[in-house]
Amino acid sequence: MTGKSQTLTFGNMPRLIAGMSVVGKRESEGPLGKYFDRVEPDPKMGRNTFEQGESAMLKTAIEGAANKAGMTVYDFDALFAGDLLNQLVSSSYAAREMPVSYFGLYSACSTMTEALALAAATVNAGYYETAACATASHFATAERQYRFPLEYGCQRPPYAQWTVTAAGCSVVVADGDGPAITHATIGRVVDLGITDANNMGAAMAPAAMDTFFAVLDDTGMDVSDLDGIFSGDLGRLGSEILRDLCREKGVELGQRYADCGDMMFSRGQNCYSGGSGAGCSASVLNSFILKKMKEGCYRRVLLMATGALMSPTTSFQGESIPAVCHGVILENV
Amino acid sequence: MTGKSQTLTFGNMPRLIAGMSVVGKRESEGPLGKYFDRVEPDPKMGRNTFEQGESAMLKTAIEGAANKAGMTVYDFDALFAGDLLNQLVSSSYAAREMPVSYFGLYSACSTMTEALALAAATVNAGYYETAACATASHFATAERQYRFPLEYGCQRPPYAQWTVTAAGCSVVVADGDGPAITHATIGRVVDLGITDANNMGAAMAPAAMDTFFAVLDDTGMDVSDLDGIFSGDLGRLGSEILRDLCREKGVELGQRYADCGDMMFSRGQNCYSGGSGAGCSASVLNSFILKKMKEGCYRRVLLMATGALMSPTTSFQGESIPAVCHGVILENV
Repeated sequence: MTGKSQTLTFGNMPRLIAGMSVVGKRESEGPLGKYFDRVEPDPKMGRNTFEQGESAMLKTAIEGAANKAGMTVYDFDALFAGDLLNQLVSSSYAAREMPVSYFGLYSACSTMTEALALAAATVNAGYYETAACATASHFATAERQYRFPLEYGCQRPPYAQWTVTAAGCSVVVADGDGPAITHATIGRVVDLGITDANNMGAAMAPAAMDTFFAVLDDTGMDVSDLDGIFSGDLGRLGSEILRDLCREKGVELGQRYADCGDMMFSRGQNCYSGGSGAGCSASVLNSFILKKMKEGCYRRVLLMATGALMSPTTSFQGESIPAVCHGVILENV
Repeated sequence: MTGKSQTLTFGNMPRLIAGMSVVGKRESEGPLGKYFDRVEPDPKMGRNTFEQGESAMLKTAIEGAANKAGMTVYDFDALFAGDLLNQLVSSSYAAREMPVSYFGLYSACSTMTEALALAAATVNAGYYETAACATASHFATAERQYRFPLEYGCQRPPYAQWTVTAAGCSVVVADGDGPAITHATIGRVVDLGITDANNMGAAMAPAAMDTFFAVLDDTGMDVSDLDGIFSGDLGRLGSEILRDLCREKGVELGQRYADCGDMMFSRGQNCYSGGSGAGCSASVLNSFILKKMKEGCYRRVLLMATGALMSPTTSFQGESIPAVCHGVILENV
């Protein structure tokens, strides 16, 4: 490949000072339930449609993160946001109620780390004092947009993943109390020819591997320099594929590695290969990971959210699935 | 509102050293025809589907811009790209053939200026030496995704706009020969309640006004400090609305102002209120505007691309249309 560095280094140590996670009922019943800030049992959040519910959930996460940072949304210089819905309507409709510079991003389920990378880059460079990063996904909206009407009751293969109903928001500032974002590694689009849109873990694992080795190459770190490695939502199958791919290259991920999608649901919840969706890594970062970093369980964490970049149209047209993975390193320093 | 600056200032003068525009047949027959670099008479570009054609057109623009900059795509540190298709498939499928850090952006028809803002910001801060910005739109893919099957022959209101079949790419570098990108003003999402998805000019004009006055307030410039002001694709009706809105605030845009959508087609081409689409401002910037700047006709240009952020789903659900406008200032210095 090019040999170019894909990694941005943030010497001024922008800080992730607050994170907020909002999840649905099923997510709250999973292994991470106790870590989430807020549970919304109503999938429409009192609105008329699932889409409006998703947008309201995202807005709740953004306002909640501002609140935890001792701010309001009026204090944000910029909002970096995106989601899985066509034309990013969850984000745009949430943003229209906030008078803030708005960057719409799409990177499927890796949108959170794309947002963190750009927020950290712009804060580190002094363009902004305070930037918010937010994303969401919703089982009911994703299912009908990407797959089948819910009423259809479609059968799924065992390697399918379950779109997480969740939103997350992180507040990144120039100076404050929280882990520093020290690096961001921006992924290349990788497509090894998977065409089964149910098998996203297999489509995304090669992108995760590509970015993971870019992190190691660019930063000079060894796998042992990272005490937590989280992929976004490869699920049970995809995360096993990533382990195998790394093993083939001589790197054993071991106990330090886990996948946010795999962590989200227990096997008894019948969510097949685990969770997926832009809200998956966003809610796990802004709950479990931040809390464990605060408790000192992790000193340096690599979060690699992965995204499958196909659309229903390209799947119908027989195209394979391109994927991307963006990584950010968080450090207690 | 917040009173916060929405404008990023680029003191290191990142340069737009090369631009490439690729357009369809109808666009080549319009008033700007002679300025475009390449005309593609086949809307599928020899591929099997319109969507593949759009992606191929975007790839042609990116490779062409690299070529004009004396580079290949391997020389790009990053690609900032997006388009109108669901899940940005034109951009992602183009990017999978380029081994480069990929930022997926969605801001509807204002994607080009969002990309330019982020490319200039990252180059100005020293993160990248070379960043490419690219976007495309296509009449046939947009029509069937946002409105009706082409075969349906749907009647349109006179204020509707015609999605431009075009792609554009700009190469931004730390040091080189071309106009400097001196400022970028990142828009807020504005929604004044327009619900007619055919009337995008009216939905977007208030966002253009909001960003235009942010430019003036943040930079301290007067309208006379700008010798070219281009909005993205408000069309004939929307650009008249913008003139009126500015006049109400005491600013006369006058002859220095034109709209890329209005410029794209002549009245005899039956394109109603003019062109629209992410490729509209992208192709006009990378042809007419850059060439006129090179000839010295303009010294300082403000390009304000506007985007309507609704989706077909939100329109069906009766939602109004949020809009955004991002501005960049290009200067011969």
